[in-house]
Amino acid sequence: MSDKNKILSNEALESVEPVAEVFEDASTVGLSDDAISKIVEALHDGDSTTHLELINELSVPDTADLIHKINDEDRKHLLIDRKVKLDPEVYPYLDPAVGKAALSDMSASRVAAIISALDSDDALELIENLDKNFQKEITRKLSAKMRVAIEEGLTFPEDSAGRLMQREYVAIPQFWTVGKTIDYMRAAADDLPSDFSDIIIIDPMYHVVGEVPLNRILRSKRTEKLETLTFDVLHTIPADMDQEEVTYLFRREGLNSAPVVDSDNRLIGLITVDDIIDVIDEEAEEDIMKLAGVEGGDLYRAILSTTGSRFRWLFVNLMTAIAASIVISMFDATIQEVVALAILMPIVASMGGNAGTQALTVAVRALATKELSNTNMFRVIGKETVVGTLNGIGFAIIMGVIAALWFGSTTLGFVIAGAMVINLIIAGLSGAGIPILLSKMGSDPALSSTVLLTTITDIVGFFGFLGLASIFLV
Amino acid sequence: MSDKNKILSNEALESVEPVAEVFEDASTVGLSDDAISKIVEALHDGDSTTHLELINELSVPDTADLIHKINDEDRKHLLIDRKVKLDPEVYPYLDPAVGKAALSDMSASRVAAIISALDSDDALELIENLDKNFQKEITRKLSAKMRVAIEEGLTFPEDSAGRLMQREYVAIPQFWTVGKTIDYMRAAADDLPSDFSDIIIIDPMYHVVGEVPLNRILRSKRTEKLETLTFDVLHTIPADMDQEEVTYLFRREGLNSAPVVDSDNRLIGLITVDDIIDVIDEEAEEDIMKLAGVEGGDLYRAILSTTGSRFRWLFVNLMTAIAASIVISMFDATIQEVVALAILMPIVASMGGNAGTQALTVAVRALATKELSNTNMFRVIGKETVVGTLNGIGFAIIMGVIAALWFGSTTLGFVIAGAMVINLIIAGLSGAGIPILLSKMGSDPALSSTVLLTTITDIVGFFGFLGLASIFLV
Repeated sequence: MSDKNKILSNEALESVEPVAEVFEDASTVGLSDDAISKIVEALHDGDSTTHLELINELSVPDTADLIHKINDEDRKHLLIDRKVKLDPEVYPYLDPAVGKAALSDMSASRVAAIISALDSDDALELIENLDKNFQKEITRKLSAKMRVAIEEGLTFPEDSAGRLMQREYVAIPQFWTVGKTIDYMRAAADDLPSDFSDIIIIDPMYHVVGEVPLNRILRSKRTEKLETLTFDVLHTIPADMDQEEVTYLFRREGLNSAPVVDSDNRLIGLITVDDIIDVIDEEAEEDIMKLAGVEGGDLYRAILSTTGSRFRWLFVNLMTAIAASIVISMFDATIQEVVALAILMPIVASMGGNAGTQALTVAVRALATKELSNTNMFRVIGKETVVGTLNGIGFAIIMGVIAALWFGSTTLGFVIAGAMVINLIIAGLSGAGIPILLSKMGSDPALSSTVLLTTITDIVGFFGFLGLASIFLV
Repeated sequence: MSDKNKILSNEALESVEPVAEVFEDASTVGLSDDAISKIVEALHDGDSTTHLELINELSVPDTADLIHKINDEDRKHLLIDRKVKLDPEVYPYLDPAVGKAALSDMSASRVAAIISALDSDDALELIENLDKNFQKEITRKLSAKMRVAIEEGLTFPEDSAGRLMQREYVAIPQFWTVGKTIDYMRAAADDLPSDFSDIIIIDPMYHVVGEVPLNRILRSKRTEKLETLTFDVLHTIPADMDQEEVTYLFRREGLNSAPVVDSDNRLIGLITVDDIIDVIDEEAEEDIMKLAGVEGGDLYRAILSTTGSRFRWLFVNLMTAIAASIVISMFDATIQEVVALAILMPIVASMGGNAGTQALTVAVRALATKELSNTNMFRVIGKETVVGTLNGIGFAIIMGVIAALWFGSTTLGFVIAGAMVINLIIAGLSGAGIPILLSKMGSDPALSSTVLLTTITDIVGFFGFLGLASIFLV
């Protein structure tokens, strides 16, 4: 064996006593509500010794949990209290809105100290949310190495692979053998990233030649050359690829990690699967939030800011509701004559809205996961229209009978049945069609589909029902 | 060096020529629509040589893409065509609904052949969706080892860690040294799982003592004992833990893998982070789908089955819409007198529904991610009620002025303003309160919150507006 490995200490050796923590069930995962209220009590009592002790006992994820769950005032108190030395690793764990608020209240040098203790990707994630001027103040106080990493990182587009990647990776020349690689890793143990499970193989120009998982190295002969151990297919990611594409690629190809390259195809970073999990969460969350007209981080936002962001979406909805009311007003004479129309008309509109939302949700998700493209686009729209038609016929019969019995008028039954069929066909067609059309036009289908859809189903619902009534009933 | 490593061939050596595949942008990831239509054309022409050639060239994810995007008929044609030898790895890649349909059309022995070629976790995932009787037929045709794995796997609850885990892992006794471990891995190269990045450390009773990432082994001295290299905190997962809890744990603690143990705390399997990604997708998808009343796999479901599953949800909605209509009918005399009420009433109901959905979506997501618990429950409900009140006041003023001008009646303006404030307060309160209440009662908040919410906002909207009108206007 090489004797280099004898000189070196190993950071892994610091953790000598494994503590078995068995999670029996859901309730034992995470910080209990009891533990939180104990700490909050200590905070309120001003008993700083107790609360410091309690907080110092917490793991990083538990500390983040605590910060999330206490109220704004307690949170400020806890974060500003300079006697509490929070582990810097806590900050990347926080919800971006909470993290931003916490760091924005601190001095630039305090933030710089936190940032300096983190990996470059976590540091970048924290700093990219802050105000431009504050960013500059902070970077001035960083070490040259970290400053370069941050400044370079900020040149990549937001939500791109360049922002997501870590600069800590292990790259080995292609002509090295397994034995030389193992000897090098023993010798350089302290300089290696704290965790990695793949090695990137490069040529002398720093072009990526391949990727080798550590387990392939461990089971190979010492004389084996690394280039013979690489995967069949290499997936390199350009730094400016959008993070949504990156997650798609990871999921699709089942990747554990992938090297990131610059425009000259040179290695500049590494994205690992655990970075991807956060993005997947983020993207799924974004879709569900956008469909309902809510912005992310809403849970931790101040009341006035939440009210404002919700107001904008509701205002657009008010305009569409008024448009629907104008349609109704065109038939005011008819309604005055047959008041049953006013009673029944919300049913037609509401069924259209709900049926349309079903089709819309399926289409928005399928677009997000790329299961929907040109090939099956018309088939999906066609299917949704047929489903709408079939359910339209079903509910036309049910509602036609109910209306006829309720108001003792067969004609009224036929009128609402006709309107129901029309609105559910339109609902299926536009529920699937609107998101597809928006995505073709380069818009985000999750963002405005719902408003457009309910406008259509409201207007068609009211116009169809009242229009048919004005022809056949009055 | 040990000479054992000289005896052995290495599966990794099979892949000698790395093919660099650089993804320039989104459009190059995945199968193009052009490629799909080429294959479909060949299928339709009956030119089996061409379509076999085209399909055999595809990677596993591309093949899955193709199968997803062609229509039902082409899909059946492709899957039943026995000349097409699809890579068995394709099946676990398919949407569960598509996979189930494909396998259900095959003979038990054909399915058994596919299953036998897969890892035990993938095999279990495929087989658990099939009919009970068909399952039995298939397992009878499997090798003893795979049969035991499947039968044992099926004893764990659905969506539990036991179903998710793989039985392929590397477990090493705690007293082994780094050197002995490396020598063993070289010697046993062919028997090791095809991919792994952590080693599980066990005691003689097969209890888990710790977990060591391969990179810690590679950078340690050969004389180092494995038990000194384990993580500080060990996370073991009981086999019956729900997969949602498992993903929560992985995300929270940033795990790469975790050993699964039986009720005696003995090692029985391993869950890795890439298994988790599928579950995260699944769970996020489930929430968004449930909120809209859609079942998963809807994109690939046959028209009649889709229509049926949508019908049930729409039927519940019809009942709530009729309930709202009954409320309206209580005020038919008032409406007949002031037809403007019929014109304006949908606005109040619709604004309540939308504002409530915003609060509801935030609460449902926060419950799913465990950001919402007893500690902050009342604070969140309180905040949403205040936000509802503030937006209620804003829209009361806007809509009050519009209504007063539109119909030339200040009283009508005040009536709609009053109803708007009431409905938006109730919307905020119940939007946050309903999911929390449902989750306290052990129900799934995503599933029925929307229906309950719109029932409340419709009824309060109509009752508030028409009630106030009947008092002040008539």
